[in-house]
Amino acid sequence: MKSALLYEGKAKKVHSVVGEEGQLILEYKDDATAFNGEKHKIFKGKGRLNNLISSHIFHYLHEKGVASHFIQALSDTEQLVYQTHIIPIEVVVRNIATGSLTKRLGITEGAVFHEPLVELYYKEDALNDPLMNDDHAKYITGISEGELEFIKEQARNINHHLQVMYQKIGVKLVDFKLEFGRLHDGSIVLSDEISPDTCRLWEEETGRKMDKDVFRNDIEDLVEIYDTIWKRMEANVHV
Amino acid sequence: MKSALLYEGKAKKVHSVVGEEGQLILEYKDDATAFNGEKHKIFKGKGRLNNLISSHIFHYLHEKGVASHFIQALSDTEQLVYQTHIIPIEVVVRNIATGSLTKRLGITEGAVFHEPLVELYYKEDALNDPLMNDDHAKYITGISEGELEFIKEQARNINHHLQVMYQKIGVKLVDFKLEFGRLHDGSIVLSDEISPDTCRLWEEETGRKMDKDVFRNDIEDLVEIYDTIWKRMEANVHV
Repeated sequence: MKSALLYEGKAKKVHSVVGEEGQLILEYKDDATAFNGEKHKIFKGKGRLNNLISSHIFHYLHEKGVASHFIQALSDTEQLVYQTHIIPIEVVVRNIATGSLTKRLGITEGAVFHEPLVELYYKEDALNDPLMNDDHAKYITGISEGELEFIKEQARNINHHLQVMYQKIGVKLVDFKLEFGRLHDGSIVLSDEISPDTCRLWEEETGRKMDKDVFRNDIEDLVEIYDTIWKRMEANVHV
Repeated sequence: MKSALLYEGKAKKVHSVVGEEGQLILEYKDDATAFNGEKHKIFKGKGRLNNLISSHIFHYLHEKGVASHFIQALSDTEQLVYQTHIIPIEVVVRNIATGSLTKRLGITEGAVFHEPLVELYYKEDALNDPLMNDDHAKYITGISEGELEFIKEQARNINHHLQVMYQKIGVKLVDFKLEFGRLHDGSIVLSDEISPDTCRLWEEETGRKMDKDVFRNDIEDLVEIYDTIWKRMEANVHV
């Protein structure tokens, strides 16, 4: 079914599909990278866990009415998706202040946002993914006002559903990153992945980090933590 | 009329007024500073020119229906204003791409924005005035959605009127910074100053810089340039 390798990114390979022009296969790799690629390590089993977790989340969001590029998981490390033209905006939703936000704007670490903050970053490695406002995003990407409102509304909506899901497994959703893409007909859907690589997750009882920060800051074994997240999710599939 | 010195900033002194609790006297200084205060020089006559230019602009905007803190010029270097509680947001309007914008977001120097870009910066020297989006501004300053929309709409409105005014004297308004403050009753008005210290101005025919960039980049004598701007404005007062 897999045909040519089209693109290899930091965490995923993208393959074309034999006889299906509008579909792609995403293959999750075992590579972890941080600090714009400066830190890099292989974690055996990471690709499988991110594929399982991301597939589970896209399936869950689909049930909640959130359209995405996800079609189905194909194997432990592969998923079938609709081909989208990625909009070069990283949409970040924040429920609790941590990371770059606290340094840039002097907001107290751990402050809780009762109204989640939505941020847009220009997805451009050469510029180190700089923060944009709406006017910048419209000028740079050509996205319309209405489309941008739709994306931000979807991001808030997804945040709500993920918060409910993570709460059931004893985890606080601190912040996360989304990407959106255009299908062949121009419509915008959720794309890329949602996994502990793209979210900050803090255990509710202990406050321990359960996401890629364990790799960024050399805290714990990444695979063990991701496996814990996946086991809890799996146990709650039918809750 | 002048009473105690309340505050001395980089470019202005603020005095209280005898018997007038809700009013202040702004005294424009001859100091020029750049790069968050790292570069500093005295230009004899700069204070007078910025006071004359800023007073002229506030008067002009008042005629166009833009409410501000400005009451009247009192002397060559002083103006009487209503006391406001400054909202810690620097509102920047950009008509042409230059400066930090081109570096941060990779936008081509000199690109013209047919829809002007409006940006918000957190007015906080210790953080080097970082860029904010609307969600950051609301969280940090407590400003409401409606008030923020009002400020951005006023900024676009002021941009239009200033573009018309500068066009008449052969100058392109490239970008500029505004500050807003709250009067005693909570209402928001334009505040601070509008002068070649707070605007980028390029001569239409020659492209030469006619603003504080001549000091930032050691191009020409600042006072001579500001005097040229003022003489052209004065000649067009009744146009």
